[in-house]
Amino acid sequence: MAELYDVVIVGAGPAGLSAAIYCMRKMLKTVVISKDVGGQVVLTGSIENYLGYGNKSGMELAGIFEAQAKEFGTPMVMAEVERIEAEGDEFLIRTTGAELRARAVIATGGSSYKMLDVPGEGELLGRGVSVCATCDAPFSKDRIVAVVGGGNAAFQSAELLTKYAKKVYIIHRRQSFRADEILIQRVGKSRYVELLTETCVVEITGSRKVDGIVLLDMKTNGRRRLDVDMVFVEVGRVMKLDYVKHLVETNEIGQIRVDREQKTSRKGIFAAGDITDRKYGQAIIAAGDGAVAALSVYDYLREL
Amino acid sequence: MAELYDVVIVGAGPAGLSAAIYCMRKMLKTVVISKDVGGQVVLTGSIENYLGYGNKSGMELAGIFEAQAKEFGTPMVMAEVERIEAEGDEFLIRTTGAELRARAVIATGGSSYKMLDVPGEGELLGRGVSVCATCDAPFSKDRIVAVVGGGNAAFQSAELLTKYAKKVYIIHRRQSFRADEILIQRVGKSRYVELLTETCVVEITGSRKVDGIVLLDMKTNGRRRLDVDMVFVEVGRVMKLDYVKHLVETNEIGQIRVDREQKTSRKGIFAAGDITDRKYGQAIIAAGDGAVAALSVYDYLREL
Repeated sequence: MAELYDVVIVGAGPAGLSAAIYCMRKMLKTVVISKDVGGQVVLTGSIENYLGYGNKSGMELAGIFEAQAKEFGTPMVMAEVERIEAEGDEFLIRTTGAELRARAVIATGGSSYKMLDVPGEGELLGRGVSVCATCDAPFSKDRIVAVVGGGNAAFQSAELLTKYAKKVYIIHRRQSFRADEILIQRVGKSRYVELLTETCVVEITGSRKVDGIVLLDMKTNGRRRLDVDMVFVEVGRVMKLDYVKHLVETNEIGQIRVDREQKTSRKGIFAAGDITDRKYGQAIIAAGDGAVAALSVYDYLREL
Repeated sequence: MAELYDVVIVGAGPAGLSAAIYCMRKMLKTVVISKDVGGQVVLTGSIENYLGYGNKSGMELAGIFEAQAKEFGTPMVMAEVERIEAEGDEFLIRTTGAELRARAVIATGGSSYKMLDVPGEGELLGRGVSVCATCDAPFSKDRIVAVVGGGNAAFQSAELLTKYAKKVYIIHRRQSFRADEILIQRVGKSRYVELLTETCVVEITGSRKVDGIVLLDMKTNGRRRLDVDMVFVEVGRVMKLDYVKHLVETNEIGQIRVDREQKTSRKGIFAAGDITDRKYGQAIIAAGDGAVAALSVYDYLREL
């Protein structure tokens, strides 16, 4: 029989690790299962708005979070959760490596980056197409790059890229950007940056590596080619929740519906972080919601 | 005419300062008004469960939060907000020092500690009666002290006090404690600590300083005297929201009702932190909610 835990936490980003700290302090038998540590935080260049840390790289912050969880002795298993099944009042969690049982689940993992889905993108991923400016910006030295997207992630990536690239296009299909004004102004005034709005990338070209993109002007419907060496895709997230979505209600974009206590529609399953239907996805919000999820689990298990 | 701000943030605890950072990054014309900095965080000995900081004093953490808010140039006014009035789509904020106007308000200040309300308490406050173990624990060296309460605050205070006092009573009117098991076990096994449950403090005695307490045993209804030199009151919070409660809906214990976007019942007024009807009051939760409040204000002002 698979080992029984009080709570299995899926994912080790800010939501999962904050939940882990609270569960451990409540002395629940806890395990964190995740295929990586830090979640999407590690893909962020510099995080300025997490209360307590004004200027850390995502990678550093993830390391700090992990070390804190480990100080409380949190067991962490590096594996992917494939499927969760309800079995009476318990849950059976099947991972790539093992099976275990839990009285409660906190789901936090499964949000990942969205792609453009245009010709050339898949073939050239890792050969000029990137979803991680933090990882790949240094490779853009003296190159021409395009960032696709209009939110904070796009502008933060562009800001980092101006330190390396000789030219940074920010390409956005809408008329106005969603990013913070402070970022738009700071990045927009850089002499390396050119903003292209109401413009779509319809193809990424190149044989062995990226050599350009084809743009569609949405006002004139005209197409043109732009020489670029790299394309950074920053157009949002996609939910990969096959492991749990058969058990819980989701919204129209696939996020798990939760109430203010991070309860899902399924008794015993809680969720926090970017996979939930929270309007704003931010590390500090995910950390707070992770804490709430843990305290809710504790109350739920006491009531059982 | 009083100066007009986009947003006035009342209070400078984790909720207020996190909100301030987000408002400043959104380039809103922002001011924080508070009579102190750090909120109730500064009254906490050691904070272990704020994701990012595993072992800081509340005072240190408050200093880190404040420094980060100031890095973004957040204007901070040290004053008490006496009254907020609605004037059309704007708000008039009257403080002890000045008047200003704002298009939106984020209320976070006004939660403070509850007292026992027994004879002797008021007279002996500061003369043996304390609401701040962090401030006053060093004065308990080789003394006998009583901590009144059963939550994390009570046990955290008791833990700190064992480093100084020769005897620490934890006195709680209920049968079981609300604090984290990890804390109860750690503190309870200390040879300096004695736990008294189903027991009320009905009087604090002493002429110039505390010399004892009178206890009521709730099972037998019997009274007895206990010699103690100090009494630490850790029985929860009280809401002081006269400045805003005429404008917003509150719940049965005086907390401001908010939705998941930290909106109150009044358009343009948002709230976060311990003054809201959030089930769990924790620094990391307040910081997350402060960020949400700021992002909601930003969206609200853009829509106006």
